[in-house]
Amino acid sequence: MLPNPIENLVKQLARLPGIGPKFAERLVFFLASQPKEYTSAIAYALIDFAKKIKHCAECGNISETGLCPICASPKRDRTKICVIESALDIIVLEKSGQYKGLYHVLGGVISPHKHIMPENLRIKQLVDRISKRNNSPAFAASPEKEKNNPKIQEIIIATNPNTEGDTTALYLVRVLSPSGVKITRLARGLPSGSELEYMDEATISSALAGRKDL
Amino acid sequence: MLPNPIENLVKQLARLPGIGPKFAERLVFFLASQPKEYTSAIAYALIDFAKKIKHCAECGNISETGLCPICASPKRDRTKICVIESALDIIVLEKSGQYKGLYHVLGGVISPHKHIMPENLRIKQLVDRISKRNNSPAFAASPEKEKNNPKIQEIIIATNPNTEGDTTALYLVRVLSPSGVKITRLARGLPSGSELEYMDEATISSALAGRKDL
Repeated sequence: MLPNPIENLVKQLARLPGIGPKFAERLVFFLASQPKEYTSAIAYALIDFAKKIKHCAECGNISETGLCPICASPKRDRTKICVIESALDIIVLEKSGQYKGLYHVLGGVISPHKHIMPENLRIKQLVDRISKRNNSPAFAASPEKEKNNPKIQEIIIATNPNTEGDTTALYLVRVLSPSGVKITRLARGLPSGSELEYMDEATISSALAGRKDL
Repeated sequence: MLPNPIENLVKQLARLPGIGPKFAERLVFFLASQPKEYTSAIAYALIDFAKKIKHCAECGNISETGLCPICASPKRDRTKICVIESALDIIVLEKSGQYKGLYHVLGGVISPHKHIMPENLRIKQLVDRISKRNNSPAFAASPEKEKNNPKIQEIIIATNPNTEGDTTALYLVRVLSPSGVKITRLARGLPSGSELEYMDEATISSALAGRKDL
């Protein structure tokens, strides 16, 4: 019943996560009520994005350049790699201002029922990245090179604190332990500003198990 | 901190109603994880839409043609005009299959605190549309023309059942009553499939006030 360009735009927008056909329809009718420049501005931002954005060859972060600004920065602590599910997680970690190391984007988590297996994630790249850096014979010969590219001393696993994130973390521990590098995982416990009353049992359990001396 | 094409796309998407900056960020990172063709398909659908979609000269519905398919259809009952806030409402009314008349899109409702006054809506066009059709001296002379374009006999006001919609309905009654055309408004009452227990007082009141003999 709707004209073709509308049907097609609804269909395209409805493919985005969190935007169903109803929401897409609302967006399209909203766009129809706006000047054409409004719609074009969004279209050109999408085209520019599709044209310019690639993935960092080292960590998989999204980037305009071959190496992302974090991997390229001389100010980052190159002895630490924080492993996250998605590039989006980098924003949150960076906002905390507490982490100065490097990242490694997995591109998802192991989830057999969604047919996501370890080989679909950037796990092999992580293993290679560590062994390339830590086993290079060049390092022994050139202390200068070692200073700029020191050995990796810690892998911080920051997959989400849920079943799939935990499964992936366990898998990572298995494949990374032969490297001999220390492996840690983000702490579990009560989120800041929360109230005990509203916490689920799993969170309370992890807060108890991880309790600290004062 | 984010590359420019990302920042810009987040900004553009966040301007859409119902999509805040957080949601926009999620969408952009989702797009980054998809093949470039995915993003381009959305961009081209937007461009096609901006290029081809205009507003029906008669009713204000969105359309690919000068007159929308409803206004152009010989099958519609041309004695009735249903006045709605947005072209989106046409879809819902058409889906009900109960209405065979024409439409008139206001393009919003009167809302002084949002600076939307009667002159910002397509109210003058509605008044003109009715007087042009009902007062044309040509009709008396040509019965054939009158058959294809009969006088308007009913205006159904279908603005939303809330304060702004009611205000706009009252205003429309005032400006349309000189035309002598019958003016009606969609019934208020209990929505089908609802439960009394969960209805608000205003709905209960209107259901009581509008009760019918059985």
